[in-house]
Amino acid sequence: MIGLGSKSSVVLATIVALAPFAVQADEGLWTFESFPAAKVKAAYGVDITPAWLDKVRAASVRLSIGCSGSVVSPNGLVFTNSHCVTDCAQAVSPKDADYLADGFLAAAPPEEKSCPGLEAEILQGVADVTDRLKSAIAGRAASDVVRARNAAVSAAELEGCGDDQRLRCQVITLYEAGRYALYKYRVYRDVRLVFTPSAKAAFFGGDPDNFNFPRYDLDVAFLRLYEDGNPVATPDHLVWNPAPPAARESVFVPGNPGPTERDATLAQLGTQRDVIIPLSMAELSELRGRLIRFGEEGDARRRAAASDLAQVENDYKVRVGELATLSDPTFLAAKQSQESDFQAKARARFGAGLGDPWRVLGGIATQSKALWPAYRALAAGPYDSKLFDAARTLVRAAAERPKPSAERLPEYADAELPQVAKGVLDPQPIDPDLEQLMLEFWLSKARERLGADDPLTQRLLGADSPETLARNLVAGSRLADPAVRKALWDGGSSAIAASSDPMIAFVRRIDADARRLRAEYEAKVAGPTALAESALAQARFAIYGETRYPDGTLSNRLSYGAVEGWTDRGQTTGPFTTFAGLYRRSTGQPPYDLDAKWKAAESELAPGAVFDFTTNNDIVGGNSGSPVLNANAEVIGAAFDGNIHSIGGDYWFDPMLNRAVAVSTAATTEALRKVYGATALLAELGVR
Amino acid sequence: MIGLGSKSSVVLATIVALAPFAVQADEGLWTFESFPAAKVKAAYGVDITPAWLDKVRAASVRLSIGCSGSVVSPNGLVFTNSHCVTDCAQAVSPKDADYLADGFLAAAPPEEKSCPGLEAEILQGVADVTDRLKSAIAGRAASDVVRARNAAVSAAELEGCGDDQRLRCQVITLYEAGRYALYKYRVYRDVRLVFTPSAKAAFFGGDPDNFNFPRYDLDVAFLRLYEDGNPVATPDHLVWNPAPPAARESVFVPGNPGPTERDATLAQLGTQRDVIIPLSMAELSELRGRLIRFGEEGDARRRAAASDLAQVENDYKVRVGELATLSDPTFLAAKQSQESDFQAKARARFGAGLGDPWRVLGGIATQSKALWPAYRALAAGPYDSKLFDAARTLVRAAAERPKPSAERLPEYADAELPQVAKGVLDPQPIDPDLEQLMLEFWLSKARERLGADDPLTQRLLGADSPETLARNLVAGSRLADPAVRKALWDGGSSAIAASSDPMIAFVRRIDADARRLRAEYEAKVAGPTALAESALAQARFAIYGETRYPDGTLSNRLSYGAVEGWTDRGQTTGPFTTFAGLYRRSTGQPPYDLDAKWKAAESELAPGAVFDFTTNNDIVGGNSGSPVLNANAEVIGAAFDGNIHSIGGDYWFDPMLNRAVAVSTAATTEALRKVYGATALLAELGVR
Repeated sequence: MIGLGSKSSVVLATIVALAPFAVQADEGLWTFESFPAAKVKAAYGVDITPAWLDKVRAASVRLSIGCSGSVVSPNGLVFTNSHCVTDCAQAVSPKDADYLADGFLAAAPPEEKSCPGLEAEILQGVADVTDRLKSAIAGRAASDVVRARNAAVSAAELEGCGDDQRLRCQVITLYEAGRYALYKYRVYRDVRLVFTPSAKAAFFGGDPDNFNFPRYDLDVAFLRLYEDGNPVATPDHLVWNPAPPAARESVFVPGNPGPTERDATLAQLGTQRDVIIPLSMAELSELRGRLIRFGEEGDARRRAAASDLAQVENDYKVRVGELATLSDPTFLAAKQSQESDFQAKARARFGAGLGDPWRVLGGIATQSKALWPAYRALAAGPYDSKLFDAARTLVRAAAERPKPSAERLPEYADAELPQVAKGVLDPQPIDPDLEQLMLEFWLSKARERLGADDPLTQRLLGADSPETLARNLVAGSRLADPAVRKALWDGGSSAIAASSDPMIAFVRRIDADARRLRAEYEAKVAGPTALAESALAQARFAIYGETRYPDGTLSNRLSYGAVEGWTDRGQTTGPFTTFAGLYRRSTGQPPYDLDAKWKAAESELAPGAVFDFTTNNDIVGGNSGSPVLNANAEVIGAAFDGNIHSIGGDYWFDPMLNRAVAVSTAATTEALRKVYGATALLAELGVR
Repeated sequence: MIGLGSKSSVVLATIVALAPFAVQADEGLWTFESFPAAKVKAAYGVDITPAWLDKVRAASVRLSIGCSGSVVSPNGLVFTNSHCVTDCAQAVSPKDADYLADGFLAAAPPEEKSCPGLEAEILQGVADVTDRLKSAIAGRAASDVVRARNAAVSAAELEGCGDDQRLRCQVITLYEAGRYALYKYRVYRDVRLVFTPSAKAAFFGGDPDNFNFPRYDLDVAFLRLYEDGNPVATPDHLVWNPAPPAARESVFVPGNPGPTERDATLAQLGTQRDVIIPLSMAELSELRGRLIRFGEEGDARRRAAASDLAQVENDYKVRVGELATLSDPTFLAAKQSQESDFQAKARARFGAGLGDPWRVLGGIATQSKALWPAYRALAAGPYDSKLFDAARTLVRAAAERPKPSAERLPEYADAELPQVAKGVLDPQPIDPDLEQLMLEFWLSKARERLGADDPLTQRLLGADSPETLARNLVAGSRLADPAVRKALWDGGSSAIAASSDPMIAFVRRIDADARRLRAEYEAKVAGPTALAESALAQARFAIYGETRYPDGTLSNRLSYGAVEGWTDRGQTTGPFTTFAGLYRRSTGQPPYDLDAKWKAAESELAPGAVFDFTTNNDIVGGNSGSPVLNANAEVIGAAFDGNIHSIGGDYWFDPMLNRAVAVSTAATTEALRKVYGATALLAELGVR
């Protein structure tokens, strides 16, 4: 799955540099503003006009879960991946149903289910704010850079959108600290589930087939945008084209690629390879083992853990792929040569004036290694504890909201607060046994990383064991009740101070340390890194020109390419799979078993119809749910994964091997008709 | 814990080179034959005479579980670690008792419990067989080296010990392929449990405190050697000295250090760092997670999984420490400088005659990476499945025993067969739920590593899922019954062929592939590695002389040093802990909680008495249970661990930081008297 991944991915990604790479082949996470239309015209003969770009951008959706999507009907219907709605499907399932396992189809809009915490955003406009941001940072000490930047960002955002709750302004850092842009989004805060297939259909092949191809997944879902209780009118939607993709056909993928690290220095990559990734792999693995066993303890537990387990297994596989890339001699030689070339040219051009940002970043990498265990343990928190997250949000929001927006922790700035409030206040199911598991795991890992005698461990645990503390927190907390959360949110700091909820008390106890560690990390790592990378970004612009694309930032991008398979060590993999292939691969044993609907439909489905397909578009985590468009900007599929090589896309793009994996509209249409009988949905998509 | 570690450690260790390092400070895993007595005399003023060495060697015990020990009474009493007898304590517990958790003390010899599968060996003599082995290998193709060496080893062993069942001959490869020695051991095949404390006392602080110091563990146990149903007379035992160790006192540690890798080339270490260790960490972590959760499912499961979980956590911590060493710039610079010096001198001396063993080993490392997943999955097998291990042993023994000893898989050679038979035939409890967990985990990891479509995966699983196959194998197999195992052992290949036991059938199905993968690994990795390392060993002897020690080989060695703490980044840790410290550290929450006996004894125990202590002896995994001796060869403690830095001892010895951790005879004596009332045992130790 190429969703943005867990918190740990996000944390990881903020550790390393984001900056541009030299362009090759069909590589590129292009912004709409700097899309290389002339190059595409020359290579593919397709005219990507400004009107084409505007039309596509206006129907491209960013989902707050770290996914992408496209508007495909006049009534706010959004096409995305099933794996982008697993949390929603799990949360909106009534007691006697399991929409994640069994799928869901709303017979009509009144049956559509609002997804807790989920928002959708559509980009309205972009303004350059580079000068403004740079002057706010200029002359600051490295330790003060993050604070100064946060304040300037908050001010620019407030100015851009005011207090219009339908808008969200966000300053996007492009080319690492090379450029800053203010993105203005139209926000939809009521997003409802319309359709998702059963898990057996969406994730056929499960973890073993994840990041592999041939693939047979109907990893699709439909959501609908609502406002004031009604579906949103979206006349500027894209056209749903149910025709199958053709080999070598030109295709375009808009979406929101997450943080990539294609211009990290070798020293930064070494820290990733030697420390951060192996420890992350180990941590994810232990959690995976606990979750697998937890799921085997009974159906209710299997259901409660399903979404987290899928995410953990996905994150783990990404780490394995990243480590393989970072240990690949071909990759390392390419990076080395690129870095040497850049250093030589930079020295020739700037002499001593540039300083030595590479050495500085190497020094920061050492700092980062030393700070990592404590930062990871306290500042990042548990992998997925809804009670802890709610408590921390409530405690911090109470402390931050009275401050001027520019002085708050940036995630509590005015532009972010509505989403924060939605996230903490929307009702959602909370499984106490899973909470216990998550907290116990987090606390035991924190003790392991920090050591039993570290004062931070003692602050975390007191005289308790991780198991006892987790049990007491979960058993005693009333935060699973949305009304309790609402009262604490509304009551602000006096309510927080007065609360005897053990989870609130726990966060009160540890939050000063967590904030201190974060501040230390920002002062010693994030700030100095931004300065050094800014210097590198300027040098790159000067030496290599500005016709490059910025690293992924979970904001709107457009990738171009073609429907294509690949050849790896003499073995060629074609770009298409079929329904016949699905039934051939089905063994009847998980994860290769089909549900009753699919078994019944076998004779109905055209055996040779294209199911999933691959393209050579440059996409990464965050692109999940991105539409695959043909030259006419019609939707012919949805990207949901990459092949195993594509995981290296965090660090480079190998045009021979990296492939995006998509599910076709052809197969989706066929399945909606013959497996699901989704007549109304098909009609809305304009398919008869 | 510094036991030899799990199977995976053994497999790992065979991957890389074993060869000597340049000597510094008190480093050294010295053989008794080449102990640097003059150096010790000069540095410490202690006379280590040939008589001293003979006396100590004759009372030094090797335990087949991968531990060490010492004979400490005239009646075959062996002093070792509690963590070396966890499997035994678990296995001999009756249904209504848990000796591992609660401890065990035999009131008199008739109550002592024979440990399933456990043997003890005492070295009788050593003969050099270098020329014989070298000429057997000389001129062989790299792919034939392992087979030829196995045959020559088997012949030498047979010649050395004949078919005397009280003896075991073993060819030990020293200085990698630089020297070969025939070790003749006296074997004791009936080893009984006399005493082990409760887990709370032996492993106080649990995994968090493992490899840390200050430490408060009574990690001691007593075993007794039996023959023909009677305790063995051991007049040449060592003296138990209950006096506390003194700071800076000279101490000597005999024992059986396991495989170390101090002369691996940088290329070999790179494979470890980038591939093998991170994946091993991840695999151990997932198993750890499954075991932790399994143990939380109920007391019976916690008990069943306790020993495996402790081992997995220990192995994991070792991997983390190894990775830290292999990423440590100081270590890498030292290795680089050492390798460069060696290369330069070797080129100057041998010119092109030496070839380029470093380059060859680099190429083998690449081969090893490629073969690793399949080899690991099929040839190594599950982490700890007693049913699978029994089935494989029975299937292979039936195939191998009819062959001449020299043509068998070496672990089924005549010298090994009695131990193999004991291992498979001794009654031992087998927990079906834990078996299910272990098999399911192994099969799912094999599929993950190989890929779902690999023919080997399909051979392993057929159309089953890992979960289903594991369930069927465990539910259907009758191998938990020792009588069934005995019938298959005695029945040989016709009984194996006729068996309908599903586990036997499963091993029959996969064993050809497992053997083929092993043979391929030996031909492409182990054999060529032996040749290249042999060349390096010869060059090292020529350049650096022969006054060095060989890498650890799980055979008898002697380390010298002193009672000493250490200073790390300005923080000094003293060498002693006390009973008072134990009670201070006790929080009442696991793993810092004491049992009732210890709580009751608090006022009885001298608060300032030395409990555990550290020394600067060079010890590694396999030394667990080693006695710590004073200059008079009296036992003053038992080594049971190292500090966190000592884990790097796999790759180098840092005299400033690496420390052995031991429990004192002083504390043991005090606890036996005041906590356990073990009057008879104290009398046998000569303590009044």
